[in-house]
Amino acid sequence: MNAIFWIVPFCSLLALVFAWFFFKSMMKNSEGTPRMMEIAQYVREGAMAYLYRQYKVVGIVFLIIMLILLLLAYLGVQNPFVPVAFLTGGFFSGLCGFLGMKTATYASARTAHGASQSLNQGLKVAFRSGAVMGLVVVGFGLLDIAAWYLFLTQVIFTPENMVSGLHFAGLEFVHPNTNEHQKLVEITTTMLTFGMGASTQALFARVGGGIYTKAADVGADLVGKVEAGIPEDDPRNPATIADNVGDNVGDVAGMGADLYESYCGSILATAALGAALPAVALQASGMETEMAVIAPMIVAAIGIIFSIMGIFMVRTKESATQKNLLNALLLGTGGSSLLILLAMLGMAAMGWITYGVFGSVVIGLAAGVIIGQATEYYTSDEYGPTKGIAKQAQQGPATTIIDGIAVGMYSTWIPVVTIVLGIIGSFWSAGGMQHFAMGVYGIGFAAVGMLSTLGITLATDAFGPIADNAGGNAEMAELPKEVRERTDALDMLGNTTAATGKGFAIGSAALTAMALISAYMEEIRLWFGKIAGPEGFVTKGEFVFYTSIKPAVAEGIEAIQISAASVKDFSAAYDITLFNPFFLGGIFIGSMMAFVFCAMTMKAVGRAAGAMVDEVRRQFREIKGILEGTGTPEYAKCVEISTKGAQREMLLPSLIAIIVPVVVGAILGVAGVVGLLAGGLTSGFTLAVMLNNAGGAWDNAKKFVEKGNYGGKGGETHKASVVGDTVGDPFKDTSGPSLNILIKLMTMVSVVMAGLTVTLSLM
Amino acid sequence: MNAIFWIVPFCSLLALVFAWFFFKSMMKNSEGTPRMMEIAQYVREGAMAYLYRQYKVVGIVFLIIMLILLLLAYLGVQNPFVPVAFLTGGFFSGLCGFLGMKTATYASARTAHGASQSLNQGLKVAFRSGAVMGLVVVGFGLLDIAAWYLFLTQVIFTPENMVSGLHFAGLEFVHPNTNEHQKLVEITTTMLTFGMGASTQALFARVGGGIYTKAADVGADLVGKVEAGIPEDDPRNPATIADNVGDNVGDVAGMGADLYESYCGSILATAALGAALPAVALQASGMETEMAVIAPMIVAAIGIIFSIMGIFMVRTKESATQKNLLNALLLGTGGSSLLILLAMLGMAAMGWITYGVFGSVVIGLAAGVIIGQATEYYTSDEYGPTKGIAKQAQQGPATTIIDGIAVGMYSTWIPVVTIVLGIIGSFWSAGGMQHFAMGVYGIGFAAVGMLSTLGITLATDAFGPIADNAGGNAEMAELPKEVRERTDALDMLGNTTAATGKGFAIGSAALTAMALISAYMEEIRLWFGKIAGPEGFVTKGEFVFYTSIKPAVAEGIEAIQISAASVKDFSAAYDITLFNPFFLGGIFIGSMMAFVFCAMTMKAVGRAAGAMVDEVRRQFREIKGILEGTGTPEYAKCVEISTKGAQREMLLPSLIAIIVPVVVGAILGVAGVVGLLAGGLTSGFTLAVMLNNAGGAWDNAKKFVEKGNYGGKGGETHKASVVGDTVGDPFKDTSGPSLNILIKLMTMVSVVMAGLTVTLSLM
Repeated sequence: MNAIFWIVPFCSLLALVFAWFFFKSMMKNSEGTPRMMEIAQYVREGAMAYLYRQYKVVGIVFLIIMLILLLLAYLGVQNPFVPVAFLTGGFFSGLCGFLGMKTATYASARTAHGASQSLNQGLKVAFRSGAVMGLVVVGFGLLDIAAWYLFLTQVIFTPENMVSGLHFAGLEFVHPNTNEHQKLVEITTTMLTFGMGASTQALFARVGGGIYTKAADVGADLVGKVEAGIPEDDPRNPATIADNVGDNVGDVAGMGADLYESYCGSILATAALGAALPAVALQASGMETEMAVIAPMIVAAIGIIFSIMGIFMVRTKESATQKNLLNALLLGTGGSSLLILLAMLGMAAMGWITYGVFGSVVIGLAAGVIIGQATEYYTSDEYGPTKGIAKQAQQGPATTIIDGIAVGMYSTWIPVVTIVLGIIGSFWSAGGMQHFAMGVYGIGFAAVGMLSTLGITLATDAFGPIADNAGGNAEMAELPKEVRERTDALDMLGNTTAATGKGFAIGSAALTAMALISAYMEEIRLWFGKIAGPEGFVTKGEFVFYTSIKPAVAEGIEAIQISAASVKDFSAAYDITLFNPFFLGGIFIGSMMAFVFCAMTMKAVGRAAGAMVDEVRRQFREIKGILEGTGTPEYAKCVEISTKGAQREMLLPSLIAIIVPVVVGAILGVAGVVGLLAGGLTSGFTLAVMLNNAGGAWDNAKKFVEKGNYGGKGGETHKASVVGDTVGDPFKDTSGPSLNILIKLMTMVSVVMAGLTVTLSLM
Repeated sequence: MNAIFWIVPFCSLLALVFAWFFFKSMMKNSEGTPRMMEIAQYVREGAMAYLYRQYKVVGIVFLIIMLILLLLAYLGVQNPFVPVAFLTGGFFSGLCGFLGMKTATYASARTAHGASQSLNQGLKVAFRSGAVMGLVVVGFGLLDIAAWYLFLTQVIFTPENMVSGLHFAGLEFVHPNTNEHQKLVEITTTMLTFGMGASTQALFARVGGGIYTKAADVGADLVGKVEAGIPEDDPRNPATIADNVGDNVGDVAGMGADLYESYCGSILATAALGAALPAVALQASGMETEMAVIAPMIVAAIGIIFSIMGIFMVRTKESATQKNLLNALLLGTGGSSLLILLAMLGMAAMGWITYGVFGSVVIGLAAGVIIGQATEYYTSDEYGPTKGIAKQAQQGPATTIIDGIAVGMYSTWIPVVTIVLGIIGSFWSAGGMQHFAMGVYGIGFAAVGMLSTLGITLATDAFGPIADNAGGNAEMAELPKEVRERTDALDMLGNTTAATGKGFAIGSAALTAMALISAYMEEIRLWFGKIAGPEGFVTKGEFVFYTSIKPAVAEGIEAIQISAASVKDFSAAYDITLFNPFFLGGIFIGSMMAFVFCAMTMKAVGRAAGAMVDEVRRQFREIKGILEGTGTPEYAKCVEISTKGAQREMLLPSLIAIIVPVVVGAILGVAGVVGLLAGGLTSGFTLAVMLNNAGGAWDNAKKFVEKGNYGGKGGETHKASVVGDTVGDPFKDTSGPSLNILIKLMTMVSVVMAGLTVTLSLM
C-alpha cells in the first residue's frame, strides 16, 4: 500500500481532535442568566428527546434492512460485508447528528450571552460551534472510509487469501486467483454500499427533521402570531420551544446528515470509478490504479487541513460591521477552496491525478458558485424576481402564489444549464468520449473537489440556526433589545451564506448522484460476471456487452470476434440505449417519484401542523393566565406532539424511497433502474430547485413588504405576502431539501441491490 | 398498391361530407331573439378577429421556418419535400381551427335557443356542432395523409424513378436503385415530418388560446365579480364578451389543434415504424411491409365510419334526465370504441396485423380509460382529495394552496404507472424484447387505436364550451332562468365527459410521443446512412451500430464480423445507453424545459390579465352609467386587449420549444436529443397531470363550498377556496394543456432536424 494513504486516517482524526477543541472552548463560555440556562435546557431536552425517538425508529428500520441484506448475502446475491458496512455508515451519520445537535443546543444560550457582550463574540461562539458540526462530519466520514479501506486491503484481501480464496460460514468473501485490479474493484464496490447506511439515516433526518420543524413553526405562527397576536418566540406561546427545537433538528442535524452522505458518497463513488479505470486509460494518463482509488480520499484529507486553517481565519476586530463579518466568512471558505485547488495542482504535477481531472474539479467548483449566485438572484429582495412577487401581492394571495410558482419554475434554468455544462465540462476535461471512463472519473472528482472543504462550508451553514436559536433564547429570557438585534444580525449573515450553501448542497448532490449512477454500472458489470460467469449464457444483450466488449476495451484489446448468436443481443443492447420501453418506463417512474415524495412530505407537514394548532389552542383555552404571563405553558407537550408527528409521518415516504428501486429492478431490470435513477435525478433536481427558490422568494418578498413597501406590515399586501410565505415553508424546508436525499438514496439502494437485480433479470 | 388503401381517402371525405351535413342542420335552427343574435355576433367577430391575428403571426413564423427548411434542403441535410409537407400540415390544422370555431360561434345562440325549447334540443344542437369539429379534424387529418401517401407512391417513387433516380434543381428526390422496402421507409419518414406543421400550429393555438381565455376570465372575474359585485356573464361587464370568445379560442380551437396533431402524429409515426419493421419480424408474424404501413391509416378510416355511427346514436327521448343524457353520450363513445376493436380483431384474423398488435390497442384503450377515471377521482367533489382541499380551506388560503399542490403531485402516480404499464404492456403484447421493432410498432398502434374514434370523442369534448357559451348568451340576453339552468346542465354534462377526455388527450399524447421518439431513431438511422454512406468512417459508436449491426439484424443475418477499429466504438455506443453524460444532460434539459415553459405561460397569463384588469377598471370609471345598465361597455376594446396580449405572449415560449431541440442537437448530438425528448416527455407528462388535477380539484373544491359546505358562498372558507380556484386557472387551462404540445412539438422538431443533427455530430 502506498504510504501516502496514512494521511487519510491521520487527517480524519485531526478533524475530530479540533472538533473536540472547539467544543471545549465553546463550553468555556458562560450560558448567561438562570433564565437563559433554563430555556436552553428545555430546548436541549426537547432536541434530545426527539433524537432518541428518531433513532429508535431508525434503529428498527436498520435492523430490518440488515436482516434482509444478510438473507441476500446468504442467498449469494449480496456481498457479505454489506450488512456490516450498512450499519457503520448509518451509525457514524447518526453519531454526527447527535454530536452536532448537542453542540448546537449547548451553544445557543452561550451565543446569546456572547452577543450581549459584542457582535464579534457572538459570531465567534456560533461559528466555532458550527465548526464542530463541520469537523465531526468530515472526521467521522473519512475515518469510516479509511478504516474500511485498511481492513479490506490488509486483513481480507491479503496475498494469501487472493490465491486461496476466503470463505466464512459458507459464503465466499474472496475469490481464488483474484488479481490486483479486480481486488481494488471488489474493495471499492463493497465500500460504496456503506453509503446506503448514511443515505438511509440522512433521509430520516431530513424528512423527520423537516416535518418537525415546519409543524412547530406553522403551529406556533398560526395560533400565536395570527390568532393571539403575540410576537415570535414569545415565552407565552406553548409551541415556541418546539419551534426552537425544530431549528436544531431540521437545519443542524438534517443538513449535517445530508452533507455527510454527499461527502462519503462522492469519495466512495469516485474511488470505485478509479478502480474501474481501464488499463489503457491509466497508461495514457500515467496514473496508477491504486492512486486512482485513494486520490479522492487524499484530496478529502488535505481538505480537512485547509478547512481547519480556514476556520481559524474567521476572526475580525472588535468593532466589526456586518460587511466585515461577511468578508471574514468568505475569506475562510474562499481561502480554503483556493488552497485545495493549489494542492490538487500539486498532485497533478506529481502524476497522482491528471491535469484533466484537476480541470474537472475547477469546473465543479465553478458550477457550485454559479448555482449559489443564481439562488441569490432569484430569492433576494434586491433583485427583480422577488420584488415582482411583492408587487403581485398587491392584487391578493392568488397572484402572489402564481407569481411565486412561476419564479420558482423559471429559476430552474440557470442551475440546470450549469449542472449540465458542469457535468459535460468535467467529463470532457478529464477524458471525453475517447477516454470515457476517465471522463466519468472526472465527474466524480468534481463532486469530491466541491465537498473537500466541507469542514468549513458546513460551519458557515450550521451557525445560522444556532444564531436563530440564540435569538429565541434572548427573546424568551427578555434580554435587552440590542442583544436580539445582534443575534438577528448574525441570523441575517447566516441567511446570506445559506443561499450559496444551498447551491453547494444541491450541486454536489447532483454530481454525487451522477458519479453514483455510473458506479452503479460497475456494480452491475461485476455482478453479471459473478452470477453468469464469463462463459455463461443469457439472451440479454447487456450480458454480451458486460462480459465481452467492455472487458475487451478495458484491457486495451483492439479487436474482438463476436459470435453469431450475439448479433441480436447487441441490437437489443443498443436499443436499451436510446429507445427502450423499460428504460423510458423507468424515467417516467423516477419523475413521478419526485412528485409523489413531495406530495407526501407536504401532506405530512399539514397533518402534523394541524395537530400542533389544536394543542396550542387547547392550552390557550385551558391554562389559566397563560396569555397574561402568569400561567406556565406546557412546552413539553408541544415538543411531544411535533416529535410524534414527525416520527409517524416520516416512515412512509422513507420506506417508499427504499422499496421502489428494488421493485423497479425486479420488474423493469437494469435498464429500468437506470431510467429510474436518471428520471429521479433530473426531475428531483429541477423540482427541488423550484421548491427551494419559490419558498425563498416568498419569504423574502414578505420581508420586503415588512420593510415598509406596498403599505408595509399589517396591510392587505402584507397579508397576501404572508400567504406566500406560509405556502413556501414546506416547499423550502421540508420537501425541497428532502429531494436531495431521495435522489441519492434511490441510487444507493440500487447500488446495494445490484446483485439481486442482475439475478432476477437473468432468470 | 393494395386496393384496400382507397378506403382511407374515401372515409376522410366521408367525414368532411358529414361535417358539412351537421353544420347545415345546425344552421337551420333559429338563433333566437335579435339580442341573442347581436351577442352571438359580438362573440363571433371577436373570435374571428383573434384567429385572424393569430394566423398572421403564425403565418410569419411558418414562412421563416419554411425558408430555413428550404435552406437546409438546399444544403442536403433536409428532405426536399419537408418544407411543403410542413406547410400543408400547418394549413390543414389551421383550417380545422377556423371551421371548428366558426361552427361553435354559430352554435352558441342556437343552443341557447334550443335549450329554451327543451334540454334535449339544446343537447342536440350543441353536440352536433361539436361533431362538426370532431369530423373536420379527422377528415382533414386523414385526407392530408392519404394525399401525400398517394402522391409519394404514385408520382415520385415510380418504378422508373427508383431505377434512374429523380433530381430537381440539383436536389436528389429519389436515390437510384432504391428497393421497395427502402422506398416505404423514405416515404413514411418524409410524411412524418409534416406532423411538425400541425405541431407548430397546435402550440400557437394552445398557448395563445390558453393565455387569451385566462386573461379574459381572470380580468372579468377580478373586477366584475370581486370588485363591482356583478354576476358572471353580466352584460355590464366589458370583459364578458372577451371571456366568451376565450372559451372558443381556448377550449374549441386549442383542443382541436392539440388532438389534430396527436391524431396525425400517431398515424404517421406508426406508419414509419411499420415501414422499418425488419424482414425477420414480418416473416415471423406473417405481415407484409406495405400493409404494416397502411394499417394504421385503415384503422383510422374505419374509426371514422364508427364515429359517425356513434354520433347518430347520441339521441334521447324528449323528457331525458341528466343521467339519460350522460348514458346517451357514453353509448356513442363506448359503442364506437367497441366496434373499432371488433374491426381490428377482423383485421388480425385476415393477417393484416397480428393478434399481438390487437392486444396492444386493447391495452392502450384501457390505459386511456384508467387515466380518465383517476382524473375523475382526484378532481371530483364526490371523492376524498377534493373534499380534503375544501376542508383545508377552513384554515385559510395558504393551507388550501399547499393541500391542492400536494393533491396534484400525489395524483400523478396512477397516470404515470398506467402509462408505464400501458407502454410496456403494448410493447410486450406486440413483440417484446425478442421482436423489438414489432413491440415498438405495437406502442404506436396503441396510440392509433385510442385516437381512431376521435371523430366522436372530440365531439363530446367540444360541446362543453359551446354549452358554456350558450349559457353566457342566455345570461346576457336575459332569457328566462330555466334556459340558463338547462345550459348549465349541459355545461355540467360537458365537465363530466371532460375528465375522461383529458385522460384520453394526455394518454394519447404520451403514447404518440413514445412512437415519435422511436420513429426519430429511424430517421437518425436513415440520415446516418445517407450522409456517411455504408462505408463511411466516423469515430462515433452510434455509426457502427446504425450502419452495421442494426441493418444486419433487420435483414435476419445471424452473424457479423466486427472490425478491430470498431471495438471501442461499440463501447462508446453502449455507454450511450445507460450512462452517457450527453444523454443525461439531455434529460436534465428536457426536465427543465417543462418547468420553464410552464413558468413562461403562467407569467404570460399574469401580465395579460393585468392589462385586462386595468382596462375593465378604466371603463367602469370613465363610461357613465355602465353599472346602471344605461351606458354601453366597449366590448371590442377588451377583446382587442386579450388578443394582443395572447399574441405577444405566445411567441417566446413557442419559439423556445422550437429552437431548444435544434440547439441541443447541435451541442449534445443524437444522445442529447433523445435525452431531451425523454426528459421532456416524462417530466412534462407528470407536471401536466399535476397542474391539470390540482387546477381541477381547486375548481371543484370551490364549487363544493358553494354548495353550502363549510359556511357556503361568501364565508371565509369560500374566500380561501376562491384563491385556490384562481391559482388553478392558469394551471389547468394554460400551462397544463400547453405541455401536451410541448412534448410532441419538441419530438417533431427533432425528427425534422435529424439530418442536421447527424451532419453536425459527424463533423
